[in-house]
Amino acid sequence: MPRIVVVYSGGLDSFTLLNHSMDLGHEVFPITFDYGQKHKKEISYAEDFCQDESLALKVVDITEINSLLKGSALTDNIEVPKGHYEDESMKTTVVPNRNMILISMATAYAVTVNAEEVWYGAHGGDHAIYPDCRPEFVNKINEATLVANYSPISVKAPFIDLSKHEILSIGLKLGLDYSKAWTCYEGKELACGVCGSCAERLEAFKINGSEDPLEYSN
Amino acid sequence: MPRIVVVYSGGLDSFTLLNHSMDLGHEVFPITFDYGQKHKKEISYAEDFCQDESLALKVVDITEINSLLKGSALTDNIEVPKGHYEDESMKTTVVPNRNMILISMATAYAVTVNAEEVWYGAHGGDHAIYPDCRPEFVNKINEATLVANYSPISVKAPFIDLSKHEILSIGLKLGLDYSKAWTCYEGKELACGVCGSCAERLEAFKINGSEDPLEYSN
Repeated sequence: MPRIVVVYSGGLDSFTLLNHSMDLGHEVFPITFDYGQKHKKEISYAEDFCQDESLALKVVDITEINSLLKGSALTDNIEVPKGHYEDESMKTTVVPNRNMILISMATAYAVTVNAEEVWYGAHGGDHAIYPDCRPEFVNKINEATLVANYSPISVKAPFIDLSKHEILSIGLKLGLDYSKAWTCYEGKELACGVCGSCAERLEAFKINGSEDPLEYSN
Repeated sequence: MPRIVVVYSGGLDSFTLLNHSMDLGHEVFPITFDYGQKHKKEISYAEDFCQDESLALKVVDITEINSLLKGSALTDNIEVPKGHYEDESMKTTVVPNRNMILISMATAYAVTVNAEEVWYGAHGGDHAIYPDCRPEFVNKINEATLVANYSPISVKAPFIDLSKHEILSIGLKLGLDYSKAWTCYEGKELACGVCGSCAERLEAFKINGSEDPLEYSN
């Protein structure tokens, strides 16, 4: 069984991915990044879950790189757009080259812990908006990580062809407790239920005929 | 003329590369990284040169990522090996996935400043020891950065087929003052003259029949 570094933000997709890899019997090394998001709710959800599962979560503070990342609503003082991910307005949530930065660091960590693979939670619903969530990008970055070090590291996005509700379906079959995954862009006590991220999550639960165990303010 | 982000450490190769790109008439955006090197001499040399040239140097502190980067003499408390770069002992100077991390951040910066290309100073002498300085890696990472963002960014290593003395020859023809480039792995007042980096530099000057204007302690 390969040893796998899983990029785990604490959100629905990567929460499912981490559990999916554990269910397959892999030895997992979750890693999460603080790149100066407006709030730390996702990270604290990731920490809590890893503590419950006795997993060592590697938390890397890369806040400093915000000096490179201008023009994004997630890190700058721009209002987070309401609405569906597929709306044009959601383009403001794109952080330049984010996934390549995270994957390059996760790959360094993989070399250090002698893992063979890096997994991240890119999925079909992200393709329209995020170039670095598309199969084309995954293929290219995988080819680069295979030759960048003495130990070849594979980058995989196992959910790349799945929609959000199909990912959720995998997790529901595993019996996962989704009150342990945080999705909302806003960092308030309760999830807002109206931002693009909440809207997509709630839609996925609806399609699966299931109820989201997370508390919402709306 | 393309706008170019140049990864500029303050050393001989990237100092020559930056000046070469300026000589070609490009608009350059130098970027340097503090990834927890044992000393900051290179960075302070980079800062001084950019100040002289009225260039805005972007300095990014990524010291935090050292938690990912274990087993390297450049960042850990391991003795820096003496001798020639091509010696087996120099493998301890490899930081896992370093160039992919730096290039991914330089690419984010390129997106931000509307540059079309990222240049870095990989060269022929590095191929044996550093996988992420080989043409194969440059080709693969370039293919990834072309598709990772809305704006395609090209990664180029213009010196990839050159040896150290050939790079120096370019700079000498440009009349560059190499007392403004720091190479030594040790961070003392004067360059040591015996570490692998100094040895290679001095050899390059000798081959060019030129004298290194930098002061050495040995």
